Amino acid sequence: MTETVYETLDALGICLPEPVRPAAAFVPWTAAGDLLFLSGHIARRNGRPWTGRLGETLETADGVAAARATAIDLLATLHAATGNLATVRQIVKLMVLVNSAPGFTDQHLVANGASDLLIEVFGAAGAHARSAFGAAQIPFGSCVEIELVAQVARVPHAG
Amino acid sequence: MTETVYETLDALGICLPEPVRPAAAFVPWTAAGDLLFLSGHIARRNGRPWTGRLGETLETADGVAAARATAIDLLATLHAATGNLATVRQIVKLMVLVNSAPGFTDQHLVANGASDLLIEVFGAAGAHARSAFGAAQIPFGSCVEIELVAQVARVPHAG
Amino acid sequence: MTETVYETLDALGICLPEPVRPAAAFVPWTAAGDLLFLSGHIARRNGRPWTGRLGETLETADGVAAARATAIDLLATLHAATGNLATVRQIVKLMVLVNSAPGFTDQHLVANGASDLLIEVFGAAGAHARSAFGAAQIPFGSCVEIELVAQVARVPHAG
Repeated sequence: MTETVYETLDALGICLPEPVRPAAAFVPWTAAGDLLFLSGHIARRNGRPWTGRLGETLETADGVAAARATAIDLLATLHAATGNLATVRQIVKLMVLVNSAPGFTDQHLVANGASDLLIEVFGAAGAHARSAFGAAQIPFGSCVEIELVAQVARVPHAG
Repeated sequence: MTETVYETLDALGICLPEPVRPAAAFVPWTAAGDLLFLSGHIARRNGRPWTGRLGETLETADGVAAARATAIDLLATLHAATGNLATVRQIVKLMVLVNSAPGFTDQHLVANGASDLLIEVFGAAGAHARSAFGAAQIPFGSCVEIELVAQVARVPHAG
Repeated sequence: MTETVYETLDALGICLPEPVRPAAAFVPWTAAGDLLFLSGHIARRNGRPWTGRLGETLETADGVAAARATAIDLLATLHAATGNLATVRQIVKLMVLVNSAPGFTDQHLVANGASDLLIEVFGAAGAHARSAFGAAQIPFGSCVEIELVAQVARVPHAG
Protein backbone atom coordinates (compact mmCIF):
# COMPACT_ATOMS: atom_id res chain seq x y z
CA MET A 1 0.00 0.00 0.00
CA THR A 2 2.27 2.80 1.39
CA GLU A 3 3.02 5.72 -0.95
CA THR A 4 0.75 4.47 -3.68
CA VAL A 5 -2.33 5.78 -1.89
CA TYR A 6 -1.70 9.19 -3.41
CA GLU A 7 -0.98 7.60 -6.81
CA THR A 8 -4.30 5.80 -6.57
CA LEU A 9 -6.07 9.06 -5.75
CA ASP A 10 -4.35 10.63 -8.77
CA ALA A 11 -5.37 7.73 -10.98
CA LEU A 12 -8.97 8.18 -9.81
CA GLY A 13 -8.74 11.87 -10.67
CA ILE A 14 -9.34 12.78 -7.03
CA CYS A 15 -7.75 15.94 -5.74
CA LEU A 16 -8.12 16.12 -1.96
CA PRO A 17 -9.90 19.33 -0.97
CA GLU A 18 -9.01 21.52 1.97
CA PRO A 19 -10.27 19.66 5.03
CA VAL A 20 -13.71 20.85 6.13
CA ARG A 21 -13.87 22.97 9.28
CA PRO A 22 -16.59 21.93 11.70
CA ALA A 23 -19.61 24.25 11.59
CA ALA A 24 -19.99 23.99 15.34
CA ALA A 25 -18.22 23.48 18.67
CA PHE A 26 -16.18 20.36 17.98
CA VAL A 27 -12.97 19.28 16.24
CA PRO A 28 -12.64 17.31 13.00
CA TRP A 29 -10.88 14.39 14.67
CA THR A 30 -9.39 13.09 17.88
CA ALA A 31 -6.79 10.38 18.52
CA ALA A 32 -6.86 7.82 21.33
CA GLY A 33 -4.08 5.27 21.27
CA ASP A 34 -3.67 4.30 17.62
CA LEU A 35 -7.31 5.03 16.78
CA LEU A 36 -8.45 8.16 14.98
CA PHE A 37 -12.06 9.19 15.46
CA LEU A 38 -13.31 11.44 12.66
CA SER A 39 -16.36 13.59 13.28
CA GLY A 40 -19.47 13.05 11.21
CA HIS A 41 -18.81 14.74 7.85
CA ILE A 42 -21.89 15.92 5.98
CA ALA A 43 -22.12 15.61 2.22
CA ARG A 44 -21.17 18.77 0.35
CA ARG A 45 -21.40 19.86 -3.25
CA ASN A 46 -19.52 22.90 -4.53
CA GLY A 47 -18.49 23.62 -0.96
CA ARG A 48 -22.07 23.80 0.35
CA PRO A 49 -24.27 21.21 2.08
CA TRP A 50 -25.58 18.66 -0.43
CA THR A 51 -29.21 18.85 0.62
CA GLY A 52 -32.11 16.52 -0.04
CA ARG A 53 -33.81 13.38 1.16
CA LEU A 54 -33.49 9.95 -0.41
CA GLY A 55 -36.82 8.59 -1.56
CA GLU A 56 -38.21 12.10 -1.79
CA THR A 57 -36.05 14.63 -3.63
CA LEU A 58 -33.04 12.43 -4.42
CA GLU A 59 -32.48 9.12 -6.22
CA THR A 60 -30.22 6.34 -5.00
CA ALA A 61 -27.57 7.34 -7.57
CA ASP A 62 -27.48 10.85 -6.08
CA GLY A 63 -26.96 9.36 -2.65
CA VAL A 64 -24.14 7.16 -3.90
CA ALA A 65 -22.42 10.21 -5.39
CA ALA A 66 -22.94 12.18 -2.18
CA ALA A 67 -21.50 9.35 -0.08
CA ARG A 68 -18.47 9.17 -2.38
CA ALA A 69 -17.97 12.93 -2.11
CA THR A 70 -18.19 12.67 1.67
CA ALA A 71 -15.56 9.91 1.67
CA ILE A 72 -13.26 12.25 -0.25
CA ASP A 73 -13.76 14.87 2.46
CA LEU A 74 -13.01 12.22 5.08
CA LEU A 75 -9.80 11.35 3.21
CA ALA A 76 -8.84 15.03 3.26
CA THR A 77 -9.32 15.08 7.03
CA LEU A 78 -7.38 11.82 7.43
CA HIS A 79 -4.59 13.30 5.34
CA ALA A 80 -4.57 16.48 7.45
CA ALA A 81 -4.60 14.43 10.66
CA THR A 82 -1.86 11.97 9.74
CA GLY A 83 0.28 14.04 7.40
CA ASN A 84 0.55 10.89 5.31
CA LEU A 85 -2.27 8.56 4.30
CA ALA A 86 0.27 5.75 4.03
CA THR A 87 0.30 5.63 7.83
CA VAL A 88 -3.34 4.50 7.83
CA ARG A 89 -3.26 0.86 8.88
CA GLN A 90 -6.91 0.22 8.37
CA ILE A 91 -10.28 1.85 8.08
CA VAL A 92 -11.91 0.29 11.14
CA LYS A 93 -15.51 1.43 10.93
CA LEU A 94 -17.97 3.71 9.18
CA MET A 95 -21.32 4.97 10.37
CA VAL A 96 -23.31 6.14 7.36
CA LEU A 97 -26.47 8.19 7.94
CA VAL A 98 -28.80 8.64 5.01
CA ASN A 99 -31.47 11.36 5.12
CA SER A 100 -34.39 9.07 4.32
CA ALA A 101 -38.07 9.30 3.53
CA PRO A 102 -40.03 6.58 5.36
CA GLY A 103 -40.20 4.36 2.27
CA PHE A 104 -36.52 4.45 1.28
CA THR A 105 -34.74 1.21 2.18
CA ASP A 106 -31.52 1.31 0.13
CA GLN A 107 -29.23 2.95 2.68
CA HIS A 108 -26.71 0.15 2.09
CA LEU A 109 -26.46 1.03 -1.59
CA VAL A 110 -25.96 4.70 -0.80
CA ALA A 111 -23.27 3.84 1.73
CA ASN A 112 -21.42 1.82 -0.91
CA GLY A 113 -20.50 5.12 -2.53
CA ALA A 114 -18.14 5.68 0.41
CA SER A 115 -17.17 2.07 1.07
CA ASP A 116 -16.21 1.31 -2.52
CA LEU A 117 -13.97 4.37 -2.71
CA LEU A 118 -12.15 3.52 0.53
CA ILE A 119 -11.47 0.01 -0.74
CA GLU A 120 -10.27 1.38 -4.09
CA VAL A 121 -7.90 3.77 -2.33
CA PHE A 122 -6.56 1.61 0.51
CA GLY A 123 -7.04 -1.92 -0.84
CA ALA A 124 -7.41 -4.55 1.89
CA ALA A 125 -6.67 -1.88 4.52
CA GLY A 126 -9.81 -0.09 3.36
CA ALA A 127 -12.21 -2.95 4.16
CA HIS A 128 -14.21 -1.82 7.18
CA ALA A 129 -17.07 -2.65 9.50
CA ARG A 130 -20.10 -0.50 8.81
CA SER A 131 -23.54 0.54 9.94
CA ALA A 132 -25.86 2.35 7.54
CA PHE A 133 -29.35 3.54 8.34
CA GLY A 134 -31.91 6.23 7.73
CA ALA A 135 -31.78 9.45 9.75
CA ALA A 136 -34.84 11.65 10.22
CA GLN A 137 -32.68 14.65 9.32
CA ILE A 138 -29.06 15.69 9.06
CA PRO A 139 -27.50 19.08 9.94
CA PHE A 140 -28.12 21.72 7.23
CA GLY A 141 -30.51 19.33 5.52
CA SER A 142 -27.59 17.40 4.07
CA CYS A 143 -28.48 14.08 2.41
CA VAL A 144 -25.65 12.00 3.89
CA GLU A 145 -23.40 12.13 6.95
CA ILE A 146 -20.48 9.77 7.59
CA GLU A 147 -18.41 9.15 10.70
CA LEU A 148 -15.16 7.16 10.43
CA VAL A 149 -12.77 5.36 12.78
CA ALA A 150 -9.28 4.49 11.49
CA GLN A 151 -6.27 2.76 12.96
CA VAL A 152 -2.93 4.41 12.22
CA ALA A 153 0.68 3.35 12.48
CA ARG A 154 1.87 6.71 13.78
CA VAL A 155 -0.33 8.66 16.18
CA PRO A 156 -0.73 12.34 15.34
CA HIS A 157 -1.10 15.22 17.79
CA ALA A 158 -4.45 16.77 18.62
CA GLY A 159 -6.74 17.89 15.78
CA MET B 1 -17.36 -18.13 32.11
CA THR B 2 -15.01 -19.80 29.53
CA GLU B 3 -16.29 -22.99 27.83
CA THR B 4 -19.73 -22.73 29.34
CA VAL B 5 -20.77 -20.08 26.84
CA TYR B 6 -21.61 -22.82 24.38
CA GLU B 7 -23.31 -24.84 27.09
CA THR B 8 -25.44 -21.80 27.90
CA LEU B 9 -26.35 -21.41 24.25
CA ASP B 10 -27.30 -25.10 24.18
CA ALA B 11 -29.39 -24.72 27.33
CA LEU B 12 -31.19 -21.78 25.69
CA GLY B 13 -31.84 -23.95 22.65
CA ILE B 14 -29.83 -21.57 20.50
CA CYS B 15 -27.99 -23.03 17.53
CA LEU B 16 -25.66 -20.43 16.05
CA PRO B 17 -26.46 -19.88 12.38
CA GLU B 18 -23.93 -19.43 9.60
CA PRO B 19 -22.60 -15.88 10.01
CA VAL B 20 -24.39 -13.41 7.76
CA ARG B 21 -22.50 -12.11 4.77
CA PRO B 22 -22.71 -8.34 4.30
CA ALA B 23 -25.12 -7.35 1.54
CA ALA B 24 -22.79 -4.58 0.46
CA ALA B 25 -19.18 -3.38 0.23
CA PHE B 26 -17.98 -3.96 3.75
CA VAL B 27 -16.80 -6.74 6.07
CA PRO B 28 -18.69 -8.27 9.00
CA TRP B 29 -16.06 -7.20 11.54
CA THR B 30 -12.69 -5.59 12.01
CA ALA B 31 -10.19 -5.80 14.88
CA ALA B 32 -8.14 -2.94 16.31
CA GLY B 33 -6.02 -3.80 19.31
CA ASP B 34 -8.18 -6.03 21.47
CA LEU B 35 -11.42 -4.48 20.25
CA LEU B 36 -13.70 -6.14 17.71
CA PHE B 37 -16.04 -3.87 15.78
CA LEU B 38 -19.01 -5.75 14.35
CA SER B 39 -20.92 -4.20 11.47
CA GLY B 40 -24.55 -3.30 11.92
CA HIS B 41 -26.51 -6.55 11.63
CA ILE B 42 -30.10 -6.20 10.46
CA ALA B 43 -32.85 -8.37 11.92
CA ARG B 44 -33.64 -11.45 9.84
CA ARG B 45 -36.38 -14.06 9.97
CA ASN B 46 -36.09 -17.29 8.02
CA GLY B 47 -32.94 -15.96 6.44
CA ARG B 48 -34.63 -12.85 5.03
CA PRO B 49 -34.85 -9.27 6.33
CA TRP B 50 -37.36 -9.02 9.20
CA THR B 51 -39.26 -6.06 7.84
CA GLY B 52 -41.65 -3.66 9.51
CA ARG B 53 -41.85 -0.54 11.62
CA LEU B 54 -42.47 -0.40 15.34
CA GLY B 55 -45.58 1.57 16.21
CA GLU B 56 -46.97 0.94 12.74
CA THR B 57 -46.85 -2.66 11.51
CA LEU B 58 -45.08 -4.26 14.48
CA GLU B 59 -45.72 -4.47 18.23
CA THR B 60 -43.06 -4.07 20.91
CA ALA B 61 -42.98 -7.85 21.44
CA ASP B 62 -42.11 -8.34 17.75
CA GLY B 63 -39.28 -5.87 18.12
CA VAL B 64 -37.96 -7.67 21.19
CA ALA B 65 -37.96 -10.96 19.28
CA ALA B 66 -36.24 -9.31 16.31
CA ALA B 67 -33.57 -7.79 18.54
CA ARG B 68 -32.97 -11.18 20.15
CA ALA B 69 -32.65 -12.82 16.73
CA THR B 70 -30.19 -10.14 15.70
CA ALA B 71 -28.13 -10.77 18.83
CA ILE B 72 -27.94 -14.44 17.83
CA ASP B 73 -26.60 -13.38 14.44
CA LEU B 74 -24.07 -11.14 16.19
CA LEU B 75 -22.99 -14.11 18.33
CA ALA B 76 -22.52 -16.14 15.16
CA THR B 77 -20.26 -13.42 13.78
CA LEU B 78 -18.38 -13.15 17.07
CA HIS B 79 -17.90 -16.92 17.03
CA ALA B 80 -16.63 -16.82 13.45
CA ALA B 81 -14.31 -13.91 14.27
CA THR B 82 -12.80 -15.32 17.45
CA GLY B 83 -13.02 -19.05 16.82
CA ASN B 84 -14.06 -19.34 20.45
CA LEU B 85 -16.65 -17.23 22.26
CA ALA B 86 -14.82 -17.95 25.52
CA THR B 87 -12.16 -15.46 24.38
CA VAL B 88 -14.71 -12.64 24.57
CA ARG B 89 -13.69 -10.59 27.58
CA GLN B 90 -16.65 -8.28 27.50
CA ILE B 91 -19.37 -6.89 25.33
CA VAL B 92 -18.33 -3.25 25.38
CA LYS B 93 -21.15 -1.47 23.59
CA LEU B 94 -24.26 -1.91 21.49
CA MET B 95 -25.94 0.57 19.18
CA VAL B 96 -29.53 -0.54 18.63
CA LEU B 97 -31.53 1.08 15.85
CA VAL B 98 -35.26 0.55 15.84
CA ASN B 99 -37.29 1.29 12.71
CA SER B 100 -39.80 3.58 14.40
CA ALA B 101 -43.01 5.39 13.59
CA PRO B 102 -42.98 8.92 15.04
CA GLY B 103 -45.11 7.92 18.04
CA PHE B 104 -43.15 4.83 19.14
CA THR B 105 -41.00 5.54 22.21
CA ASP B 106 -40.12 2.06 23.54
CA GLN B 107 -36.81 1.58 21.73
CA HIS B 108 -35.22 0.65 25.07
CA LEU B 109 -37.66 -2.25 25.52
CA VAL B 110 -36.99 -3.51 22.01
CA ALA B 111 -33.24 -3.29 22.60
CA ASN B 112 -33.60 -5.41 25.73
CA GLY B 113 -34.27 -8.36 23.44
CA ALA B 114 -30.59 -8.24 22.52
CA SER B 115 -29.18 -7.01 25.84
CA ASP B 116 -30.92 -9.66 27.92
CA LEU B 117 -29.63 -12.45 25.70
CA LEU B 118 -26.04 -11.22 25.83
CA ILE B 119 -26.19 -11.08 29.63
CA GLU B 120 -27.72 -14.57 29.74
CA VAL B 121 -24.97 -15.92 27.52
CA PHE B 122 -21.91 -14.12 28.88
CA GLY B 123 -22.94 -13.28 32.45
CA ALA B 124 -21.16 -10.23 33.87
CA ALA B 125 -18.98 -10.08 30.74
CA GLY B 126 -22.17 -9.49 28.77
CA ALA B 127 -23.14 -6.28 30.57
CA HIS B 128 -22.58 -3.47 28.09
CA ALA B 129 -22.99 0.22 27.43
CA ARG B 130 -25.79 0.90 25.00
CA SER B 131 -27.54 3.48 22.88
CA ALA B 132 -30.97 2.74 21.47
CA PHE B 133 -33.02 5.06 19.32
CA GLY B 134 -35.47 5.29 16.45
CA ALA B 135 -34.19 5.24 12.88
CA ALA B 136 -36.21 6.69 10.01
CA GLN B 137 -35.48 3.51 8.04
CA ILE B 138 -33.11 0.55 8.00
CA PRO B 139 -31.62 -1.24 4.97
CA PHE B 140 -34.10 -3.62 3.29
CA GLY B 141 -36.84 -2.21 5.51
CA SER B 142 -35.62 -4.31 8.42
CA CYS B 143 -37.18 -3.48 11.79
CA VAL B 144 -33.99 -3.56 13.85
CA GLU B 145 -30.26 -3.11 13.26
CA ILE B 146 -27.56 -3.67 15.89
CA GLU B 147 -23.88 -2.78 15.92
CA LEU B 148 -21.61 -4.28 18.57
CA VAL B 149 -18.14 -3.63 20.01
CA ALA B 150 -16.47 -6.39 22.02
CA GLN B 151 -13.17 -6.73 23.82
CA VAL B 152 -11.39 -10.04 23.32
CA ALA B 153 -8.52 -11.82 25.04
CA ARG B 154 -6.98 -13.06 21.81
CA VAL B 155 -7.01 -10.86 18.75
CA PRO B 156 -8.14 -12.58 15.55
CA HIS B 157 -6.93 -11.88 12.02
CA ALA B 158 -8.87 -9.77 9.55
CA GLY B 159 -12.58 -10.51 8.94
CA MET C 1 -6.62 21.12 34.23
CA THR C 2 -6.54 18.55 37.14
CA GLU C 3 -8.46 19.56 40.28
CA THR C 4 -9.90 22.68 38.76
CA VAL C 5 -12.56 20.71 36.90
CA TYR C 6 -14.69 20.74 40.03
CA GLU C 7 -13.91 24.42 40.60
CA THR C 8 -15.08 25.12 37.06
CA LEU C 9 -18.29 23.21 37.68
CA ASP C 10 -18.78 25.24 40.86
CA ALA C 11 -18.14 28.48 39.01
CA LEU C 12 -20.75 27.46 36.44
CA GLY C 13 -23.19 26.77 39.26
CA ILE C 14 -23.37 23.12 38.25
CA CYS C 15 -23.99 20.59 40.98
CA LEU C 16 -23.49 17.07 39.62
CA PRO C 17 -26.65 15.00 40.13
CA GLU C 18 -26.77 11.39 41.21
CA PRO C 19 -25.77 9.39 38.14
CA VAL C 20 -28.76 8.14 36.18
CA ARG C 21 -29.54 4.45 36.41
CA PRO C 22 -30.26 2.80 33.06
CA ALA C 23 -33.97 2.21 32.50
CA ALA C 24 -33.23 -1.12 30.85
CA ALA C 25 -30.86 -4.09 30.63
CA PHE C 26 -27.51 -2.37 30.29
CA VAL C 27 -24.90 -0.54 32.36
CA PRO C 28 -24.13 3.19 32.38
CA TRP C 29 -20.57 2.68 31.16
CA THR C 30 -17.90 0.16 30.31
CA ALA C 31 -14.11 0.45 30.14
CA ALA C 32 -11.84 -1.10 27.53
CA GLY C 33 -8.17 -0.23 27.80
CA ASP C 34 -8.09 3.47 28.67
CA LEU C 35 -11.37 4.19 26.90
CA LEU C 36 -14.65 4.69 28.72
CA PHE C 37 -17.83 4.08 26.73
CA LEU C 38 -20.84 5.84 28.23
CA SER C 39 -24.29 4.62 27.32
CA GLY C 40 -26.65 6.94 25.51
CA HIS C 41 -28.07 9.31 28.13
CA ILE C 42 -31.48 10.76 27.38
CA ALA C 43 -32.31 14.35 28.26
CA ARG C 44 -34.12 14.75 31.57
CA ARG C 45 -35.83 17.66 33.29
CA ASN C 46 -36.75 17.50 36.94
CA GLY C 47 -35.65 13.88 36.95
CA ARG C 48 -38.04 12.84 34.19
CA PRO C 49 -37.54 12.41 30.43
CA TRP C 50 -37.40 15.80 28.70
CA THR C 51 -39.90 15.01 25.99
CA GLY C 52 -40.63 16.71 22.69
CA ARG C 53 -39.52 16.97 19.10
CA LEU C 54 -37.41 19.72 17.62
CA GLY C 55 -39.17 21.54 14.82
CA GLU C 56 -42.52 20.47 16.20
CA THR C 57 -43.05 21.02 19.93
CA LEU C 58 -39.62 22.40 20.84
CA GLU C 59 -37.47 25.31 19.66
CA THR C 60 -33.74 25.14 19.03
CA ALA C 61 -33.06 26.92 22.35
CA ASP C 62 -34.97 24.18 24.19
CA GLY C 63 -32.82 21.58 22.46
CA VAL C 64 -29.64 23.42 23.41
CA ALA C 65 -30.73 23.47 27.04
CA ALA C 66 -31.66 19.78 26.91
CA ALA C 67 -28.29 18.87 25.39
CA ARG C 68 -26.52 20.86 28.12
CA ALA C 69 -28.56 19.10 30.81
CA THR C 70 -27.67 15.76 29.25
CA ALA C 71 -23.97 16.67 29.27
CA ILE C 72 -24.28 17.36 33.01
CA ASP C 73 -25.74 13.87 33.46
CA LEU C 74 -22.86 12.46 31.42
CA LEU C 75 -20.41 14.31 33.68
CA ALA C 76 -22.12 12.76 36.69
CA THR C 77 -21.64 9.30 35.18
CA LEU C 78 -18.01 10.11 34.27
CA HIS C 79 -17.45 11.24 37.86
CA ALA C 80 -19.02 8.07 39.22
CA ALA C 81 -16.97 5.92 36.83
CA THR C 82 -13.61 7.56 37.42
CA GLY C 83 -13.96 8.75 41.01
CA ASN C 84 -12.18 11.90 39.85
CA LEU C 85 -12.92 13.93 36.73
CA ALA C 86 -9.31 15.11 36.77
CA THR C 87 -8.34 11.66 35.46
CA VAL C 88 -10.22 12.34 32.21
CA ARG C 89 -7.55 12.80 29.59
CA GLN C 90 -9.87 13.77 26.81
CA ILE C 91 -13.43 13.62 25.62
CA VAL C 92 -12.88 11.53 22.50
CA LYS C 93 -16.27 11.52 20.80
CA LEU C 94 -19.94 12.38 21.18
CA MET C 95 -22.90 11.01 19.27
CA VAL C 96 -25.79 13.44 19.63
CA LEU C 97 -29.26 12.31 18.60
CA VAL C 98 -31.93 14.96 18.22
CA ASN C 99 -35.61 13.97 18.11
CA SER C 100 -36.38 15.80 14.88
CA ALA C 101 -39.38 16.68 12.75
CA PRO C 102 -38.59 16.21 9.04
CA GLY C 103 -37.98 19.91 8.52
CA PHE C 104 -35.60 20.56 11.42
CA THR C 105 -31.99 20.88 10.26
CA ASP C 106 -30.20 22.50 13.21
CA GLN C 107 -29.04 19.36 15.02
CA HIS C 108 -25.53 20.84 15.14
CA LEU C 109 -26.78 23.88 17.09
CA VAL C 110 -28.64 21.66 19.55
CA ALA C 111 -25.56 19.50 20.02
CA ASN C 112 -23.50 22.60 20.86
CA GLY C 113 -25.36 22.72 24.16
CA ALA C 114 -23.37 19.66 25.19
CA SER C 115 -20.14 20.40 23.31
CA ASP C 116 -19.78 23.94 24.66
CA LEU C 117 -20.21 22.76 28.24
CA LEU C 118 -17.61 20.01 27.89
CA ILE C 119 -15.11 22.49 26.50
CA GLU C 120 -15.90 24.95 29.30
CA VAL C 121 -15.37 22.24 31.90
CA PHE C 122 -12.34 20.42 30.51
CA GLY C 123 -10.67 23.07 28.34
CA ALA C 124 -8.59 21.61 25.50
CA ALA C 125 -9.20 18.09 26.88
CA GLY C 126 -12.91 18.67 26.25
CA ALA C 127 -12.56 19.22 22.49
CA HIS C 128 -14.07 16.15 20.85
CA ALA C 129 -15.04 14.53 17.58
CA ARG C 130 -18.80 14.53 17.11
CA SER C 131 -21.69 13.29 15.03
CA ALA C 132 -25.09 14.93 15.38
CA PHE C 133 -28.20 13.97 13.48
CA GLY C 134 -31.96 13.64 13.65
CA ALA C 135 -33.49 10.50 15.15
CA ALA C 136 -37.04 9.40 14.30
CA GLN C 137 -37.66 8.91 18.02
CA ILE C 138 -35.78 8.49 21.29
CA PRO C 139 -36.69 6.26 24.27
CA PHE C 140 -39.48 7.75 26.42
CA GLY C 141 -40.03 10.41 23.78
CA SER C 142 -36.99 12.31 25.03
CA CYS C 143 -35.85 15.19 22.82
CA VAL C 144 -32.10 14.46 22.94
CA GLU C 145 -29.86 11.46 23.57
CA ILE C 146 -26.07 11.62 23.86
CA GLU C 147 -23.46 8.87 23.87
CA LEU C 148 -19.88 9.69 24.91
CA VAL C 149 -16.43 8.09 24.64
CA ALA C 150 -13.66 9.39 26.90
CA GLN C 151 -10.01 8.52 27.39
CA VAL C 152 -8.87 8.34 31.00
CA ALA C 153 -5.51 8.26 32.75
CA ARG C 154 -6.55 5.67 35.30
CA VAL C 155 -8.85 2.84 34.27
CA PRO C 156 -11.76 2.20 36.63
CA HIS C 157 -13.34 -1.16 37.43
CA ALA C 158 -16.60 -2.31 35.85
CA GLY C 159 -19.62 0.02 35.89
